[in-house]
Amino acid sequence: MILGGDGYCGWATALHLSNRGYEVAIVDNMCRRTFDDQLGFNSLTPIKGIHERVRVWEEVSGKRIQLYVGDICDYEFLSAAFQAFEPTACVHFGEQRSAPYSMMDRSRAVFTQTNNVMGTINVCYAIKEFAPECHLIKLGTMGEYGTPNIDIEEGYITIEHNGRTDTLPYPKQGNSFYHLSKCHDSANMLMCTKTWKMRTTDLNQGVVYGVATPETMMDDRLVNRLDYDAVFGTALNRFAIQAAVGHPMTVYGKGGQTRGFLNITDTCKCIQIACDNPAPPGEMKIYNQFTEQFSVNELAALITEAGQKLGLDPQVINVPNPRTEMEEHYYNAKHSKLQDLGLEPNLMKESILESLLTTVVKYKDNVDQRLILPGVNWTESASVGKTIAKV
Amino acid sequence: MILGGDGYCGWATALHLSNRGYEVAIVDNMCRRTFDDQLGFNSLTPIKGIHERVRVWEEVSGKRIQLYVGDICDYEFLSAAFQAFEPTACVHFGEQRSAPYSMMDRSRAVFTQTNNVMGTINVCYAIKEFAPECHLIKLGTMGEYGTPNIDIEEGYITIEHNGRTDTLPYPKQGNSFYHLSKCHDSANMLMCTKTWKMRTTDLNQGVVYGVATPETMMDDRLVNRLDYDAVFGTALNRFAIQAAVGHPMTVYGKGGQTRGFLNITDTCKCIQIACDNPAPPGEMKIYNQFTEQFSVNELAALITEAGQKLGLDPQVINVPNPRTEMEEHYYNAKHSKLQDLGLEPNLMKESILESLLTTVVKYKDNVDQRLILPGVNWTESASVGKTIAKV
Ligand SMILES: NC(=O)c1ccc[n+]([C@@H]2O[C@H](COP(=O)([O-])OP(=O)(O)OC[C@H]3O[C@@H](n4cnc5c(N)ncnc54)[C@H](O)[C@@H]3O)[C@@H](O)[C@H]2O)c1
Ligand SMILES: NC(=O)c1ccc[n+]([C@@H]2O[C@H](COP(=O)([O-])OP(=O)(O)OC[C@H]3O[C@@H](n4cnc5c(N)ncnc54)[C@H](O)[C@@H]3O)[C@@H](O)[C@H]2O)c1
Repeated sequence: MILGGDGYCGWATALHLSNRGYEVAIVDNMCRRTFDDQLGFNSLTPIKGIHERVRVWEEVSGKRIQLYVGDICDYEFLSAAFQAFEPTACVHFGEQRSAPYSMMDRSRAVFTQTNNVMGTINVCYAIKEFAPECHLIKLGTMGEYGTPNIDIEEGYITIEHNGRTDTLPYPKQGNSFYHLSKCHDSANMLMCTKTWKMRTTDLNQGVVYGVATPETMMDDRLVNRLDYDAVFGTALNRFAIQAAVGHPMTVYGKGGQTRGFLNITDTCKCIQIACDNPAPPGEMKIYNQFTEQFSVNELAALITEAGQKLGLDPQVINVPNPRTEMEEHYYNAKHSKLQDLGLEPNLMKESILESLLTTVVKYKDNVDQRLILPGVNWTESASVGKTIAKV
Repeated sequence: MILGGDGYCGWATALHLSNRGYEVAIVDNMCRRTFDDQLGFNSLTPIKGIHERVRVWEEVSGKRIQLYVGDICDYEFLSAAFQAFEPTACVHFGEQRSAPYSMMDRSRAVFTQTNNVMGTINVCYAIKEFAPECHLIKLGTMGEYGTPNIDIEEGYITIEHNGRTDTLPYPKQGNSFYHLSKCHDSANMLMCTKTWKMRTTDLNQGVVYGVATPETMMDDRLVNRLDYDAVFGTALNRFAIQAAVGHPMTVYGKGGQTRGFLNITDTCKCIQIACDNPAPPGEMKIYNQFTEQFSVNELAALITEAGQKLGLDPQVINVPNPRTEMEEHYYNAKHSKLQDLGLEPNLMKESILESLLTTVVKYKDNVDQRLILPGVNWTESASVGKTIAKV
């Protein structure tokens, strides 16, 4: 069961697992599409509606994906979906996942934390009640850790203090209401796991890039979403699109911000590995799910090089940082556990960037340049709901 | 401005500050009284309605306390209260504060985290928007730390790891949806403090005991609430009441659970100290607010001794632990910062326990013995709303 299966990671994962013989159901309330409608955004790629997507997938692959359309915060709906599908694993992508969206105004801050935290509490209760053996695989983010001045471990850290030792949850420092919602989820899940003897895996995912996966390439109508606006677009994908349309790549501040990255095809592989290695009852496994780390400046340089090979002329501008974050900092995050379980990463090679750029160039006429510049400033988040839709 | 000023800590603190010349407003939506009504509970002491309490206080002391009745999750109401009162400090007690209540069922788990976390986000936005210099003093709990096998520091811990060092938020391990809501609050507040340059103090309070303060003793109608039911009653207060009515003291499990405690008069003094020492903009001060630590068995022994002096015959029974928690563990929590700022603690001496027992004996005919035994089991928390009211 894939919560949030109409989204960027969820859609790719649903097809990946379905293609490999897993019986898949998608649960989604389409709120992500509503955010785009409300703010005047769009996916660069022309994505189809979920009903058509699922129909096309059956036509192309002969495999059926079940569809449950509804809100996981609606417990009546969620219970019915659990009782009907009887999942053995539940992959939870179904959250509001944009940091800028969560910092836009008070009502979106409250929406983000309510939607994400209460949704996850509901999922825990549904598993406890209807599928106690079901393995919950929950997407967190590397952003939960912030940028501490020590190495980032995978979820837990052993601390020696005043002559005594304990292994404790790694201290978290989320930097937006979105990132904090993930910290809250992790803490809630850990308590539920221990108290109710649940099986849970928390995946602190890095920034995902890329758009094509072997399954989405099987038919144009299966194409995945690709966001380039300043609210939902993420670092590398946005740079590729900016390069393709001749907009300078917008580096926030000094560009020394370093983060972990992974290709969308690796997201799918990691989820499969997590599904195949369920946590034992009462234990929450935590993995850092990314394959390489880069600074923003390094990303811009990589895109510049790959773009030039394709005859593009990528430029960089440093725009004032709308976020409150460190622009130069130590960053060393561990990420060996998934590789120990067999992950063979698809690293950020030139060929990968070139194929991303090629896809992007194909759809570049869809780009609305007004959506590219940052529209949400962390310090200006106000109580009065505003729309940043640019008309 | 005292959020939750009709509650146990809030009422005592409002009178304490008002009596010392601070201009005080109480904000409360009376939801605590509603919980009692719904579950068939009552305060041992016959508390008056908030309107009468405030009237009596003016009659007795000549001092006026303003009253804003409403829900802090209702931002329109909260904004109006902030604009009318223009607080320079905001003491935030206004949360659902019972761990068993939060573990009763899914809807109360979700209510607890929504009420507490979204209420606090609203308070942060109201301060940012209407009173940016206002010092937020937020009540957390020592329970946020759980029972780690290392010393508990005051909010932050310096970690040396792989040859590097950083001072990070102390790792939290809340053990109920209530305790976790406080962890979430602290994490959210830290981000708001840094991003919006707020002044905040987070007080991780221990278990409060006692009922009388100099102000509530000025008139019977000012009496504070005292909870003895298994949902809202806290350790020492419950034991005193059990001893007074001849019910054996209900020690959960082995009784080795150790926690920090403080007298209700010290709660008032700590809040005053926090008010008088506002945090600088952009920094969140964190204090552990308790004065002594005891195990549950030690508390039972103290009450036994004090009770015998008063001619009572206190007994102990070990009941199965309804919570999922360690019953024997290391516990050493620091609590020097408030004393460094001038707190002179009112320690748990025999005289204090005797006066608590005397008050309790005075009202003992109000006790409904059916409410004493634990009614909420951590592992049985179900999705279906239930009422544990015993008729
Ligand atoms: N994309 C990244 O770079 C990235 C990085 C780290 C972590 N993650 C995490 O991975 C997950 C998926 O990210 P994504 O990029 O695919 O996001 P997305 O917005 O494309 O997909 C999320 C999906 O969840 C659905 N959803 C949200 N709330 C729901 C609710 N209450 N009920 C039902 N459906 C709901 C949305 O409609 C959407 O289809 C998120 O939890 C995100 O935080 C993503
Ligand atoms: N009593 C203790 O031993 C203890 C120990 C540690 C921490 N604390 C913390 O101290 C604070 C006060 O505790 P207490 O024992 O006085 O609790 P209480 O329940 O007696 O008082 C809380 C008050 O807040 C009000 N309230 C709750 N939600 C509200 C909302 N959304 N809008 C407006 N008012 C709201 C309630 O009506 C109630 O009057 C709580 O935050 C609690 O977590 C208490």
